[in-house]
Amino acid sequence: MRPPSVAGETADALPSAPRPRRYSTELVVAVAVEVFNRRGYDATSLEDLAAATQLSKSSIYHHTRGKEHLLRLALQRALEALFATLEEPESRSGEPVDQLRHVLGRATEVLLEETPYVALLLRVRGNTETERWGLERRREFDRRVTELAASAIERGQVRPDLSARMVTRLLFGMVNSISDWFRSTSPADGEEVVASVLAVFDGLLSPTASTRPRMR
Amino acid sequence: MRPPSVAGETADALPSAPRPRRYSTELVVAVAVEVFNRRGYDATSLEDLAAATQLSKSSIYHHTRGKEHLLRLALQRALEALFATLEEPESRSGEPVDQLRHVLGRATEVLLEETPYVALLLRVRGNTETERWGLERRREFDRRVTELAASAIERGQVRPDLSARMVTRLLFGMVNSISDWFRSTSPADGEEVVASVLAVFDGLLSPTASTRPRMR
Repeated sequence: MRPPSVAGETADALPSAPRPRRYSTELVVAVAVEVFNRRGYDATSLEDLAAATQLSKSSIYHHTRGKEHLLRLALQRALEALFATLEEPESRSGEPVDQLRHVLGRATEVLLEETPYVALLLRVRGNTETERWGLERRREFDRRVTELAASAIERGQVRPDLSARMVTRLLFGMVNSISDWFRSTSPADGEEVVASVLAVFDGLLSPTASTRPRMR
Repeated sequence: MRPPSVAGETADALPSAPRPRRYSTELVVAVAVEVFNRRGYDATSLEDLAAATQLSKSSIYHHTRGKEHLLRLALQRALEALFATLEEPESRSGEPVDQLRHVLGRATEVLLEETPYVALLLRVRGNTETERWGLERRREFDRRVTELAASAIERGQVRPDLSARMVTRLLFGMVNSISDWFRSTSPADGEEVVASVLAVFDGLLSPTASTRPRMR
């Protein structure tokens, strides 16, 4: 369907309108995420979302159940992508250290591919039911990764003087921080980021671990 | 001086008032920082700050020039502590890799000591002059650290396949992310964080670097 008219004009009548002619729910969510990240979720009103999408408020309600529902759809996208990395074969069999390395690299790729959605997830504070749900799912992801780190340390594959919780927090904190500065310009940049993250990980492997992956 | 009365009562008349009897500017800033971090700077009104400090708006103006000035005082505190780490003797002489290691460890300590102030600095978006000033100072700090990383790589002390920019962004991104989860309970926790951050750093040193610090 076509975005509703602004100030009584039809969309066709607007000269060189840069906006897309058709709005999918996905696109409304994408615009909302940009506004949430720029203004903060709490500070964003439905009026702000209407202005950014050039949709009427009623049209936004046609696509979604409102601001909190837009947040849920956005967080869902980030969380599904992150949890999917845990279900990949390389995350489910083999040595724990290799599983952990795989999840770390893939989570970095997810962040690079879905930057605004993951950035929003990372900023969620817990003031609404949806935010608390997002926080709880994030914690669940962290728990799963911490278990992998604990197994890798237990088997002597990661430096034993580090705790599983600390390894997970520092490594994934490092990955999460990428959303603060990464702007995709070329795929090569993304590859450098992933390779560098894995280089940091490899620096934490026990020198004696027989399963130590080759650097690069 | 004494906080102004609420609902016409004097402070003395309030039973078991949990609030401090005297407000220093420092304390007003501390409360404001807590509110900014919880609600977001943009979403915080002077009314919110008045409610949180239990001060009247005019009394807040007695301490500061208003909301943006409170932000500036808070950012100043974080930035002064961070920049001071660059002026310490260990950051100014010796091998670049050791200088870099020192700054990284000390910046971690600053973050642990001044968590809410640094967290606020890291969330600054650039909508106001003060925010843009904060962002510019952060970038200046990053530039100084990136120069150290470049020297360390040039001298073969840090893995040469990593770029100075990437090393700086990943390591300091990792440190910055600590503000998302660190809650000081005991000094020992903080020491574990610093030691773990330095362990990650040591993992990036060139195996051939003669200046490689011993791992604990």
